[in-house]
Amino acid sequence: MSYFRDNIEQASGYVPGFQPQHTEVVKLNTNENPFAPSPRALQILSEMSAEQLRRYPDPLGDSFRRIAASVHGLSVDHIMCCNGGDDLLVICFRSFCAEDRAVAYPVPTYSLYPAQARLQNCPIIKVPFDSEFNLPPKLTTTQAALTIVCNPNAPSATLIAPEEMASLADELQGILLIDEAYVDFAECDCVELVKRFDNVIILRSLSKGYSLAGIRFGYAMAQPELIAGLMKVKDSYNVDAPALAVATTALQDQDYFATQVKKVKALRQELTLSMRALDFTVGDSQTNFLLAQPQGCPARTLYQELIQRNIYVRYFDDPGLDDKLRISVGTAEQNEKLILAIKAILSSRG
Amino acid sequence: MSYFRDNIEQASGYVPGFQPQHTEVVKLNTNENPFAPSPRALQILSEMSAEQLRRYPDPLGDSFRRIAASVHGLSVDHIMCCNGGDDLLVICFRSFCAEDRAVAYPVPTYSLYPAQARLQNCPIIKVPFDSEFNLPPKLTTTQAALTIVCNPNAPSATLIAPEEMASLADELQGILLIDEAYVDFAECDCVELVKRFDNVIILRSLSKGYSLAGIRFGYAMAQPELIAGLMKVKDSYNVDAPALAVATTALQDQDYFATQVKKVKALRQELTLSMRALDFTVGDSQTNFLLAQPQGCPARTLYQELIQRNIYVRYFDDPGLDDKLRISVGTAEQNEKLILAIKAILSSRG
Repeated sequence: MSYFRDNIEQASGYVPGFQPQHTEVVKLNTNENPFAPSPRALQILSEMSAEQLRRYPDPLGDSFRRIAASVHGLSVDHIMCCNGGDDLLVICFRSFCAEDRAVAYPVPTYSLYPAQARLQNCPIIKVPFDSEFNLPPKLTTTQAALTIVCNPNAPSATLIAPEEMASLADELQGILLIDEAYVDFAECDCVELVKRFDNVIILRSLSKGYSLAGIRFGYAMAQPELIAGLMKVKDSYNVDAPALAVATTALQDQDYFATQVKKVKALRQELTLSMRALDFTVGDSQTNFLLAQPQGCPARTLYQELIQRNIYVRYFDDPGLDDKLRISVGTAEQNEKLILAIKAILSSRG
Repeated sequence: MSYFRDNIEQASGYVPGFQPQHTEVVKLNTNENPFAPSPRALQILSEMSAEQLRRYPDPLGDSFRRIAASVHGLSVDHIMCCNGGDDLLVICFRSFCAEDRAVAYPVPTYSLYPAQARLQNCPIIKVPFDSEFNLPPKLTTTQAALTIVCNPNAPSATLIAPEEMASLADELQGILLIDEAYVDFAECDCVELVKRFDNVIILRSLSKGYSLAGIRFGYAMAQPELIAGLMKVKDSYNVDAPALAVATTALQDQDYFATQVKKVKALRQELTLSMRALDFTVGDSQTNFLLAQPQGCPARTLYQELIQRNIYVRYFDDPGLDDKLRISVGTAEQNEKLILAIKAILSSRG
């Protein structure tokens, strides 16, 4: 007999991308930003006082909320701080889903959604994308309590236009959670929908655009009534004092942020062209990674041979994805190493 | 119509103790350690690199797990890192409790337990302590999936002996979670029970004994099979890189820790005697706070008048507690200010 609930006992648990602890590898598997975070953010960390560690942090993180409100043209009560974007996913599953309250999302997408659904023991309605990753019309008729659209989507790197997302929000009976973890690299976002719809929650992360995967900081944007409900479910002190200080400072440094994002986008374009020159099928990415389909070599083989050369990319052994690799955009040097390695692997196969 | 689940809609949410953001107050309301954390922990924070912020943290926090295993005479797979002890509470509720799987605990105790139970929508079985806060025998017969004993208990500051806890673990069908958030100030702990029982989970926090409430770090100790199950429920990157570095360093600095705890215990003894001299009824505390019952002035009035003097203690408007104050042990200077203020308030009432 197990002490655990049946759904937990049967769950396999989410498997995060491999995190090698040595730094000599070319790590293009978990979509970190290749560039350093704002020097001001690092500076504020070095200035933390013993008193800030000794005392509990601000439960609501108001310093961050004020900056986020200002950056997005919203008010403080539209914002909730989270221990990474994943914390908001957990909060939403706990708030809206249950055994008789389903979650729906288009697939393929972020593999944490089904993992969280199993923990919450709620029904899962998967609605397949078409081959061009357009918004599936069937998503409007699922009756789900929570609908999640990762936009831009991972791992497809595609974007659905805000006006289409607005139509979806308008037609849904339940909550629409728009996971914008990668939106810093996209051509537009859905923040305006927060003002128009009382059922829209936007998820943001500082892990990618702000190069701060190490501090686990994300936030929700939604109408104040919705935020107040989510606040009841979040842990009272869900973000710690160092993370709060770093996140607040990084968000304030919008000039640095804009410069770094521009650099990543330029490198993304270069990498896309290089991959296409090697006969990979690669769409235009709206994120900081590419979904690339190799020709003449199985994706899994290529993935494994890259590991032999200390280059890590992400391979998903799932239908529709098992012939592709998800590759984070690295520095110019990392991208060049990747391209050279792929060339060597492909040529060794004749 | 609400978008939220009924249990969430009806929940009032946990209300944490007031966290004044200015530092001129005498803050004895949320049981922080009055002394600074290990200087080495602060040092390691100032040495964090941009690379550590840019990359995802170690998902399992193995550096910390190794130190914790060594400190407690356990192995690494007996340990799980958590985003504060509260994170472990959430993980346990999600792992073991459901609409047909109850939680049981003696009352009065930590007010987060009922708040979390409501979020998980599970039945709550409250078993009252007797007036001396002995372990209630009825706790063995509840059939609960999860039994929680806060030991030492908050807000009573009392301790149940490990052999009694062992008997309870032996008799229970479900999990026994022993919340040892305050155990660093007690005369003994229940770590040995982890080796003897496959249904025992011990919760530890670095907020109190290690003066690190600001970094939100706690951990679980249990047998490896239980830890492996809990790992499926925890967020993949639940602790951030700065918190992990600080916590690991603080736990390594056992000499500093022992010295600080000894100082707090000495101050606790002084404060207890001073309060008794003012006719308060105060038991011997096994924690870093006192539960003190005033004579000649309602506890609520005293609480409010102390706030007027910028001194914050904790008042619970609950049966059995509403005639008492919970007072964190402060520095010698803070304790003296408190005693002087109480004297002034009592004498002004004639």
